[in-house]
Amino acid sequence: MIYFNCDYNEGAHPEILARLSATNMEQTIGYGCDEYCEEARRIIRRECQAPDADVHFLVGGTQANATIILAALRSYQGALCAQSGHINVHETGAVELDGHKVLGLPSADGKITAQQIDEAYQAHIHDASFEHMVQPKLVYISQPTELGTLYTRAELAEISKVCRANGLYLFVDGARLGYGMAADSNDVFLPDLAQLSDVFYIGGTKLGALFGEAVVITNDELKKDFRYLIKQKGAMLAKGRLLGLQFSTLLGEKYMDVASVADIEKGAKNLYMKGGYHAIRQANQIREALNHKGITYLVANDTNQIFPVLPDEAIQELSEKYCLSYQERVDETHSAVRICTSWATKQEDVDALCEDLRRLDI
Amino acid sequence: MIYFNCDYNEGAHPEILARLSATNMEQTIGYGCDEYCEEARRIIRRECQAPDADVHFLVGGTQANATIILAALRSYQGALCAQSGHINVHETGAVELDGHKVLGLPSADGKITAQQIDEAYQAHIHDASFEHMVQPKLVYISQPTELGTLYTRAELAEISKVCRANGLYLFVDGARLGYGMAADSNDVFLPDLAQLSDVFYIGGTKLGALFGEAVVITNDELKKDFRYLIKQKGAMLAKGRLLGLQFSTLLGEKYMDVASVADIEKGAKNLYMKGGYHAIRQANQIREALNHKGITYLVANDTNQIFPVLPDEAIQELSEKYCLSYQERVDETHSAVRICTSWATKQEDVDALCEDLRRLDI
Amino acid sequence: MIYFNCDYNEGAHPEILARLSATNMEQTIGYGCDEYCEEARRIIRRECQAPDADVHFLVGGTQANATIILAALRSYQGALCAQSGHINVHETGAVELDGHKVLGLPSADGKITAQQIDEAYQAHIHDASFEHMVQPKLVYISQPTELGTLYTRAELAEISKVCRANGLYLFVDGARLGYGMAADSNDVFLPDLAQLSDVFYIGGTKLGALFGEAVVITNDELKKDFRYLIKQKGAMLAKGRLLGLQFSTLLGEKYMDVASVADIEKGAKNLYMKGGYHAIRQANQIREALNHKGITYLVANDTNQIFPVLPDEAIQELSEKYCLSYQERVDETHSAVRICTSWATKQEDVDALCEDLRRLDI
Amino acid sequence: MIYFNCDYNEGAHPEILARLSATNMEQTIGYGCDEYCEEARRIIRRECQAPDADVHFLVGGTQANATIILAALRSYQGALCAQSGHINVHETGAVELDGHKVLGLPSADGKITAQQIDEAYQAHIHDASFEHMVQPKLVYISQPTELGTLYTRAELAEISKVCRANGLYLFVDGARLGYGMAADSNDVFLPDLAQLSDVFYIGGTKLGALFGEAVVITNDELKKDFRYLIKQKGAMLAKGRLLGLQFSTLLGEKYMDVASVADIEKGAKNLYMKGGYHAIRQANQIREALNHKGITYLVANDTNQIFPVLPDEAIQELSEKYCLSYQERVDETHSAVRICTSWATKQEDVDALCEDLRRLDI
Repeated sequence: MIYFNCDYNEGAHPEILARLSATNMEQTIGYGCDEYCEEARRIIRRECQAPDADVHFLVGGTQANATIILAALRSYQGALCAQSGHINVHETGAVELDGHKVLGLPSADGKITAQQIDEAYQAHIHDASFEHMVQPKLVYISQPTELGTLYTRAELAEISKVCRANGLYLFVDGARLGYGMAADSNDVFLPDLAQLSDVFYIGGTKLGALFGEAVVITNDELKKDFRYLIKQKGAMLAKGRLLGLQFSTLLGEKYMDVASVADIEKGAKNLYMKGGYHAIRQANQIREALNHKGITYLVANDTNQIFPVLPDEAIQELSEKYCLSYQERVDETHSAVRICTSWATKQEDVDALCEDLRRLDI
Repeated sequence: MIYFNCDYNEGAHPEILARLSATNMEQTIGYGCDEYCEEARRIIRRECQAPDADVHFLVGGTQANATIILAALRSYQGALCAQSGHINVHETGAVELDGHKVLGLPSADGKITAQQIDEAYQAHIHDASFEHMVQPKLVYISQPTELGTLYTRAELAEISKVCRANGLYLFVDGARLGYGMAADSNDVFLPDLAQLSDVFYIGGTKLGALFGEAVVITNDELKKDFRYLIKQKGAMLAKGRLLGLQFSTLLGEKYMDVASVADIEKGAKNLYMKGGYHAIRQANQIREALNHKGITYLVANDTNQIFPVLPDEAIQELSEKYCLSYQERVDETHSAVRICTSWATKQEDVDALCEDLRRLDI
Repeated sequence: MIYFNCDYNEGAHPEILARLSATNMEQTIGYGCDEYCEEARRIIRRECQAPDADVHFLVGGTQANATIILAALRSYQGALCAQSGHINVHETGAVELDGHKVLGLPSADGKITAQQIDEAYQAHIHDASFEHMVQPKLVYISQPTELGTLYTRAELAEISKVCRANGLYLFVDGARLGYGMAADSNDVFLPDLAQLSDVFYIGGTKLGALFGEAVVITNDELKKDFRYLIKQKGAMLAKGRLLGLQFSTLLGEKYMDVASVADIEKGAKNLYMKGGYHAIRQANQIREALNHKGITYLVANDTNQIFPVLPDEAIQELSEKYCLSYQERVDETHSAVRICTSWATKQEDVDALCEDLRRLDI
Repeated sequence: MIYFNCDYNEGAHPEILARLSATNMEQTIGYGCDEYCEEARRIIRRECQAPDADVHFLVGGTQANATIILAALRSYQGALCAQSGHINVHETGAVELDGHKVLGLPSADGKITAQQIDEAYQAHIHDASFEHMVQPKLVYISQPTELGTLYTRAELAEISKVCRANGLYLFVDGARLGYGMAADSNDVFLPDLAQLSDVFYIGGTKLGALFGEAVVITNDELKKDFRYLIKQKGAMLAKGRLLGLQFSTLLGEKYMDVASVADIEKGAKNLYMKGGYHAIRQANQIREALNHKGITYLVANDTNQIFPVLPDEAIQELSEKYCLSYQERVDETHSAVRICTSWATKQEDVDALCEDLRRLDI
């Protein structure tokens, strides 16, 4: 079985394992206060051009989302997001467990607009019963979204402007950030996120770390006592250095040459972006094969997630050899599936899939 | 200013105040364990034909909703309801505060269908990522709904059947139950609710009590330790007898003649239904005046809430004399308002409003 | 059965019922925004000499405690209090339900000291693992305490000073405040509480209201959005005027003469203090009878709660005629009980109890 | 600096890293449903002699504790534990965040007794105000305790009996279980825990895993829907196989010889126990040095945590070379510190510490 169902089927960049082994018996203090974490923080602040940012390392995305939202909201406040947003759909109510309502906004492509946010906020404050309703206080967006789409820098700037005008925090979930930053159409980079949002994270789990998300807080209001919250959420890793070491390996330029890498990506100055470019290149090959067959998409995008609409028989046939992710029924005989590439996708697997797509009788 | 904005502008049926005064200096034990509460429980069990039901008295609706849902759900479970449901819109996230997600279903008239519920449940259990999603476990409906519409007995029976087949609790919010039971089209009465739901409540606040909702639990699974939950939610009234006395006065036949009442309603054997029939009669007079002008409704119904769509100028004009409740914008020049009648609505006020509606230049 | 078990066995001051009846059919807006609430707020601000205080009316004490603490704390912060504090013992974990830990401090008499508070705070901030521990952020005390004892003005000032020095909120639960202010030894009055605490409440339920606690917020940080929290906690009474009317009746000077009252207390310029002085006078008669028999107390105090240590046989004998509240076992043959007087205690009942106490064979 | 402050200063058993590297580019499904987790589950069920147990792998201890307690308790129920219990002291209120009160019982040595538990339960159910108090429903103990002490099998059996008689769940936190099972005095092994408790976990983080705790649920009531809870708590690791692989390496016999190990412990048939025996042997050398100087202990035990009471000057002197953990002040000139050994402690470091202890001028 060849897995294209998600972007976390393999372990980690070999360099990460090599460094874990090389440093294994060193003694460090725990809970993220060690030198490996400090190094990763320095790299991240520099890459984000945000020298005053607080940087924390958490193990996973749901944990990061819930902890950040808990830090930002008082109990009667809620998080605006696309109805398809991860916090609204795929976290088993983690945000609600901590007492907060997720306020879903309609969205066809996984994105929400500055106008939607403004209207939701204005509707709230002008409602005669506003005190009987959850107060919008934070906007959650994903870059790329759960449907692989990207906000442009202009869209992000507009959202940021509306948020700041209305006193809303802007939080960007970057679980797949590297796959967004590597996309052809992308014009949003780390310094943009640091400048335009109040808090965001750089996803590691899906981009070649064993696990880990690097939370970058630029708004001072959200910085205070954040480590208490990490601990309370059960998200403070005892051997915190494992996270620091992984992020310095992914984002630090000097770790690009630890392993013998022949084909360094144009422009990819670290493993994080190298993995991103690799996944996009592989995804584009699959898109080409799909396009050649005239296959349409549930939502079009140019990141590492592809959502083709296929006849149910074709899906069944492909599923004998490939693990795909079922997305949703489109009509009585067609469904959308998700095909993911990643930092680890093998050319031979892509070749096989493309060949089989071309052979499909559709 | 004449108030038609809601159904809780006045105090209580005078009989309630008379009995409060007559019993004022009696000493009773607290927290709902007194003889007044016991009498009210006996009356309610009899009226519901539910001799084994547990009956608890809470002060208000939001409190009752949150306490019942807390009793029914484990943390990862959620409540299905119409997107317009009170728990989803007008309780400032009270359900979420206790850790539970409200799972809104689309609805044009405030009602949801058995089919919607079944589809939501089936979609959950058949989703490959079901453990990553909130598990539907309770269905919340209001009778009448927030838009004044009513479930028929057949609809309720079908919903009940789907719930039981899928292991979902059915909870009916009866904050305005009396106004539903008094409507011409209604065929759902207390024994139906007791038989078809797992828990429901008989609203007192909006039907002539100073305050109070009588929660009726028929499903044994929801009975255990409910009083702990009432206390934990800050909902256990020290002088609990105030609630028992009010409900026995509203629902007991013998309290109909405490005050000199000339016009006992046909069929109204207690103050609760007398107040219900009165409000419906008044509402129907207003509907007649609206219909005469050819005015349409946001949603049509025959209970005590009327949602006419009016020109904005007309609303402004009426608002100088009447307090109405703004509902929503319909188009650039029209909005829907809510006009409520109640057990306490005066004929002279209805006459004045009808006269003014007839005079409107529309 | 004669009830001395608590101070909420009866209804309300007859003047309250009279005013409820007199205003019953008036129409007002809901949720505490009516003129009755405004009048009560004006009276309370004046009595507290706190013209900028926010005043909110809640139905009960547990509800008030939980709502205030929810307003004051972030999730990882906790409330310091005596281990015997109501929030720690008798609220079924209402504070914990909202996510906060109660940090109990040892106390023999229901009081805690400024030194204890300071030590707890210093211990926290100087612990190397402070981020792994709940951060103390609020101090909860009761005046009088659950054991009937009183803080002196000097003690309260010292606690206030320590709290302000350490950034802790000081919250005073005044569920029985009137019985404290009426005690011979008391030197803490409303302006003192307004000046020295950040938030406190004036208890109505136990002092002759049907129900109700008046929350007085003097610290601006706690004022913001408090009404959202009231609603989210299910604590916003629809017919809010019932609370306003009761507090204006209790605290407004002009309502002293609504009923024909012959024996106005020396210094009692409102019903609230009149009820307080009455209860203290009755309690002191009972104390005299107990003292005459050489009976000792679990904790000595001069408020309306008396905690005599009695032989178990005596308790059993008294319990045939009187409802007392069992407090705790003292030794193999003795227990402490609680005897409460109230605004409503009848002289004849006190006489009977004193007579029976004198006759006890101990 | 030589670290004796805790047992998680280093990385992992080299065999773990070797296997992670060897399997790195394999593709597996996520979230703990892969074959590595299945293998680990089989090993654990066999070692526990509990073929029907559910086994889940979580990343850390606080996370495991909170998730298990959330699974076990309804909102008004609480967890009995020693006041020194980890959930009561060092988890920043993680249990309270999910709505539950921790009910601390006094304890001098970190242990609680069956009698204490029974008395707490009996006191609750016989209190007239029981519904106003948090209901004890779960007992949390640690083996070894936070003070390094151990429950004997007889003590554990007695606690288990009391719990079952009173309907309380027994939950054993085994964060340091291997150091308990390797102690000379220990007679509690995995099958005992599986038989006597309802749920426990085998700690990996402190015993040579990079991270991870293996939760073993034997009571069917706690099994249902546990994976929903793991996800909701943000505790479901995407690359779940990392946990499975670590636990099979630690607990599977066949992984003992992956690395060239000369000195396999007598009786240690897997890396988990090998690491445990190693730590105990090192700790005992340090104890010998302390005993030789006549140094006393805050609490005596024979596991891997040592709590000597030392003069403050001695602590200061040792701290220049060794990182110790400050425990508490004992008197004006003495404090207790914690010295930890672990699976990774080097003989040369122990030798150095022992030598320096012998040289201390005390």
